[in-house]
Amino acid sequence: MLAGWTPRAALGHTGRMWQLYQFPLCPFSRKVRLLLSEKGVEYELWRENPWEGRDEFFAMNPAGRVPVLHDPERGISLCDSRAICEYFEETVDRNQMINGTSVQRAEIRRLVALFDENFFGDVSGPLLHERMTKRLVYRQSPDSRVLREAMRLAHEHLYYIDYLIDHRPWLAGSTMSLADLAAAAQISVADYLGGIDWSSHEQARGWYSVFKSRPSFRPLLSERMEVIQPPSHYAEVDA
Amino acid sequence: MLAGWTPRAALGHTGRMWQLYQFPLCPFSRKVRLLLSEKGVEYELWRENPWEGRDEFFAMNPAGRVPVLHDPERGISLCDSRAICEYFEETVDRNQMINGTSVQRAEIRRLVALFDENFFGDVSGPLLHERMTKRLVYRQSPDSRVLREAMRLAHEHLYYIDYLIDHRPWLAGSTMSLADLAAAAQISVADYLGGIDWSSHEQARGWYSVFKSRPSFRPLLSERMEVIQPPSHYAEVDA
Repeated sequence: MLAGWTPRAALGHTGRMWQLYQFPLCPFSRKVRLLLSEKGVEYELWRENPWEGRDEFFAMNPAGRVPVLHDPERGISLCDSRAICEYFEETVDRNQMINGTSVQRAEIRRLVALFDENFFGDVSGPLLHERMTKRLVYRQSPDSRVLREAMRLAHEHLYYIDYLIDHRPWLAGSTMSLADLAAAAQISVADYLGGIDWSSHEQARGWYSVFKSRPSFRPLLSERMEVIQPPSHYAEVDA
Repeated sequence: MLAGWTPRAALGHTGRMWQLYQFPLCPFSRKVRLLLSEKGVEYELWRENPWEGRDEFFAMNPAGRVPVLHDPERGISLCDSRAICEYFEETVDRNQMINGTSVQRAEIRRLVALFDENFFGDVSGPLLHERMTKRLVYRQSPDSRVLREAMRLAHEHLYYIDYLIDHRPWLAGSTMSLADLAAAAQISVADYLGGIDWSSHEQARGWYSVFKSRPSFRPLLSERMEVIQPPSHYAEVDA
């Protein structure tokens, strides 16, 4: 499956097609997909459920996690979403997403880590565990206490985004960066799982709605994870 | 406190002194300290217990985590250990630690993530929680079931290091890299907390003992966390 058409000249590896191992609600795979799409790098989607612990998948990534970006021709497997993003920053000039002075680049990477680690640990990770893993893997009901705490912490993260957008056009500064992609990827998964209450977050909602209308984001919003349905506002650009 | 003498010409920011906010058993601060020392960047150690939630500390890093590297003269705070390491790779040429082709750099970053996330999540994180945080913060006893599981998983990680060192001189390839610093930082904390059984890990032990004798590592091994003592072999170079 192609992630949108891109001119051949814009490809990082002309004639070669990367295979992205992922599942639809993985926020780290979403970050990589947004970056690849913004940079015009073509890739195929390969579905991987890391919780099934497939031997062939562990052979590609001993950490047992998605995303993995595999190039069968060269026999290369890139693992870890931040390592993958740095790789494409280094090899594809188009739409630089870790840009500016060293201090500005450190600020972009700080925010990427904040969303990859803190937002995921506080919000999208617990939501995925309660609403997806428990349902698909353990056949258990979600723990409403854990869900409430994740939604409470989501508000704190959205207040921080409100604050940043009060001071800057984009999360890390004057231009769109990997920080925006990382944040949007995490938030989109939390939003799919019903964990985001947008009321009282005007700035964050404005920033996110601009994102939702980007061509790189549309394919993500149209995908569905089996058995789990998103709320009605999830894929609406004006919501 | 100085982290060893370095010639002025080798400093990334001559005449300026970075302040590193950390506590002695933070594996991420240890990784940054190893990198700064290998690169000859001077810094002062500032003690921070992130679990105390100091307002001034949260103002520097909204994620509330160490390490933070602060430059009071420029009013800059660098947060997140990987962002800090990338910053010094970009600004200080000496002893490049994310080196080689883009694929090799991706391999270094994959392994850094493996130790920062998987080893920490499986081994050093649970050990720190059970043996340090519970004692210092909650005044509770460690859960022996959690400790046993962390030590079991430590063996799996050491087997992977054995495997890597069977195929390469250093973890990510032919030269020392940030992957070695990240792994040694995590392992040193787990070893301090009695979580590492070196028997049956000849390759990993050989690699680690070379590391322990490096000038960048010696200051770390001589420090002690209040009330918690390491096992006798911890700081011995030949152990």
